[in-house]
Amino acid sequence: MDSWTAYQQQNRERFLKEMMDLLRIPSVSAKREHREDMLACAEAVRQRFIESGAGRAEVMPTDGHPVVYAEKIVDPSFPTVLVYGHYDVQPPEPLELWESGPFEPSIRDGKVFARGSADDKGQFYMHIKALETMVRTESMCTNIKFIIEGEEEIGSPNLGKFVHDHRDLLKADVILISDSAMLSMEHPSLDVGVRGLSYIEVELTGASRDLHSGVYGGAVANPITILCQMIASCHDQNNHITIPGFYDDVVEVTPAERALMREAPYDEQAYQEEIGVKALWGEKGYTTNERTGIRPTLEVNGIWGGYLGEGSKTVLPSKATAKISARLVPNQSSEKITRLLLDHFRKIAPPSVSVKAFQHHGGEPYLTPIDSRGYRAASQAVRQTFGKMPIPVRGGGSIPICSILEQELGIKIIFMGFGLDSDNLHSPNEKYGLENFYKGIQTIPYFHKFFAAD
Amino acid sequence: MDSWTAYQQQNRERFLKEMMDLLRIPSVSAKREHREDMLACAEAVRQRFIESGAGRAEVMPTDGHPVVYAEKIVDPSFPTVLVYGHYDVQPPEPLELWESGPFEPSIRDGKVFARGSADDKGQFYMHIKALETMVRTESMCTNIKFIIEGEEEIGSPNLGKFVHDHRDLLKADVILISDSAMLSMEHPSLDVGVRGLSYIEVELTGASRDLHSGVYGGAVANPITILCQMIASCHDQNNHITIPGFYDDVVEVTPAERALMREAPYDEQAYQEEIGVKALWGEKGYTTNERTGIRPTLEVNGIWGGYLGEGSKTVLPSKATAKISARLVPNQSSEKITRLLLDHFRKIAPPSVSVKAFQHHGGEPYLTPIDSRGYRAASQAVRQTFGKMPIPVRGGGSIPICSILEQELGIKIIFMGFGLDSDNLHSPNEKYGLENFYKGIQTIPYFHKFFAAD
Repeated sequence: MDSWTAYQQQNRERFLKEMMDLLRIPSVSAKREHREDMLACAEAVRQRFIESGAGRAEVMPTDGHPVVYAEKIVDPSFPTVLVYGHYDVQPPEPLELWESGPFEPSIRDGKVFARGSADDKGQFYMHIKALETMVRTESMCTNIKFIIEGEEEIGSPNLGKFVHDHRDLLKADVILISDSAMLSMEHPSLDVGVRGLSYIEVELTGASRDLHSGVYGGAVANPITILCQMIASCHDQNNHITIPGFYDDVVEVTPAERALMREAPYDEQAYQEEIGVKALWGEKGYTTNERTGIRPTLEVNGIWGGYLGEGSKTVLPSKATAKISARLVPNQSSEKITRLLLDHFRKIAPPSVSVKAFQHHGGEPYLTPIDSRGYRAASQAVRQTFGKMPIPVRGGGSIPICSILEQELGIKIIFMGFGLDSDNLHSPNEKYGLENFYKGIQTIPYFHKFFAAD
Repeated sequence: MDSWTAYQQQNRERFLKEMMDLLRIPSVSAKREHREDMLACAEAVRQRFIESGAGRAEVMPTDGHPVVYAEKIVDPSFPTVLVYGHYDVQPPEPLELWESGPFEPSIRDGKVFARGSADDKGQFYMHIKALETMVRTESMCTNIKFIIEGEEEIGSPNLGKFVHDHRDLLKADVILISDSAMLSMEHPSLDVGVRGLSYIEVELTGASRDLHSGVYGGAVANPITILCQMIASCHDQNNHITIPGFYDDVVEVTPAERALMREAPYDEQAYQEEIGVKALWGEKGYTTNERTGIRPTLEVNGIWGGYLGEGSKTVLPSKATAKISARLVPNQSSEKITRLLLDHFRKIAPPSVSVKAFQHHGGEPYLTPIDSRGYRAASQAVRQTFGKMPIPVRGGGSIPICSILEQELGIKIIFMGFGLDSDNLHSPNEKYGLENFYKGIQTIPYFHKFFAAD
């Protein structure tokens, strides 16, 4: 038993309590009304770093929400690990579907329910407690730097510049991120990539004011109908995306790789039951894991127009709006696809409506090799605590900053996430298993140990 | 000059003030929170009837919002006119687009702006003030009955039973309704029909909870995308409705009638400018007036799903909902089309989503002959005060109770509306011209005079 296990056992309750305190701060980066909460959250994270043994911790400004930088430099001859995480969270709406308040963490069935519990406060906090463990038990074998940002959920618009401006400060040998999931506790896995993202908003305007649907209906374009037609036209009957050029840069995965992917444990029945659907949906010719891992997608994340209230209103609305995003795979470019989407929606609109389309945010896809020193360390660390080698899988989500981090710092990223797909990320009742939390704190020091020893 | 003109001149200001007081009551029938306002409005209308010379006025209960019944019986040998109107109004949302409060009537440019000013408080109130005029100037030549209901904007769900239960009370020779528009003050017109209505709501559910659009996107049906596809499939590229059976019972208008309709003054440029569109939209092979008059239509009145807030959220939503309505023409049946729509949306949904579809309300289309005693009286009355014969036109809107009124009472309905299409019915900044209001009060007594004399 390593020296730190006893320390972690003795401090379990406090680790959890501290993490839950962080979940109480509604650090929603998308909404201006939470600006003060964002600052409070950054400051709380900085405090925790200091209390947990970091040699330096600072709230550093950006043009948006600030970054928390911290470090514990032990010995210049040690390798340096840069841990990335984010303290911002997704908006909690729809509130009425939460069983307990999104910012009132509540423990049920061995899980802590709160917005940000898995994504990403609960996960990056494991690294802070791993740091504390190694410092207090005098088992530091790497130097550790931390960059905990506040804009991941809005596409990290200011982090690229921050990283570029602080390349020397952030100099490291590997980047370690816990902001993803495992297949299950029985089938531990390591993500080897994230999808890229292009997120846009499209607003159609028909008449300059809402009209009576009887007096004008049939003679004036209904922007909801037109928007539906535009959205519907983006997939064919095989659920293949029809936007010209969309797949141009996609690197097709080889049959050999696809065969390997199919070896990952997957129970379609259980998958369907867990999310409550009678049938799956997706691009013809690909399996579920392929659809979320190696294929780009196009989703409508929100739509609204006309009368949304109780009962009925016979209105022919002036406007209809949709939030639309694409997930991208290697070698697609977020910038290129965003331009393609914006141009496409502007172009296919008929003359009876006008279009306002703009970008929300984007991020490039990222793949990490499985033969790197970092991947080996993560793999061994997981085997140490889970008892089996993790399976490499492609994650469906996006961490916009990955490709920029690699580019600016010249080092590889390792995704060692401890969440589960069923954690309700971005949804009501987001949760994070206590076992996952503790297992993460237990596993992370091994990563540092194996990385230093490699 | 008839005896009543001087009386009306002397009481102009009071007539307007009284009407504006009625506009201050937010009698929104669709919303439960306005139940007390509905009662207050009905009582206010009853009071006005008594003050204006009615011999009897009562607020009569229904299973929904009450009906105001009033009458002035002068002489059993006189013909009896039954006036229909409604004191309920459409919801005022979106509130932010109103230049003055929807229930704070404000006079600008010779028009009174408020929800219900044209639809229908301002219009039925003309009849109360015409009654007052005739009573005070002792020029009653008909018996007059009034039925002012509180559920027109939600499809008159309880009025059919009320009329059936009170057939004797409502016995009359003609029904007169002012709840429609004229082409313009220079081109007076009389509606000869209203379209029917079928109004439904369709809710799709994909996964049982909102999902992360990266983790699940591409493998699980997005109910917004599916709903858009379903809505888009309802029109072909000629904007013809594709729902099987939808047009089965439509009575095609003869070429001769269509030629007559084309004689109505219509300026496409002015029409487009007034509503702020660069191009019109509609069923191929029909003119604008035909599209709103003689053809059935299908409109989405509201749609929502996913994240509607500021910024972005990468969610794959659990639900998407649309409010959808069809306008119907003779000989379509609202009941049949409603069933057709509900069945259609249930049927075309793929197995990856579940559908909940239900009816909001409906109403049958109605056509009135132009050779009836009532139409002649209305025509002559308009000629008297506007100086020219009104053009008969088909209105695009719906008054759900028309066909039931005719059926139960065995008499024809005359539409003598004084509004304009540009009155922003069902929209922000609903308005009613003061000239229209006064011209209506002036014209109505002539209707009674010519009807009695025919």
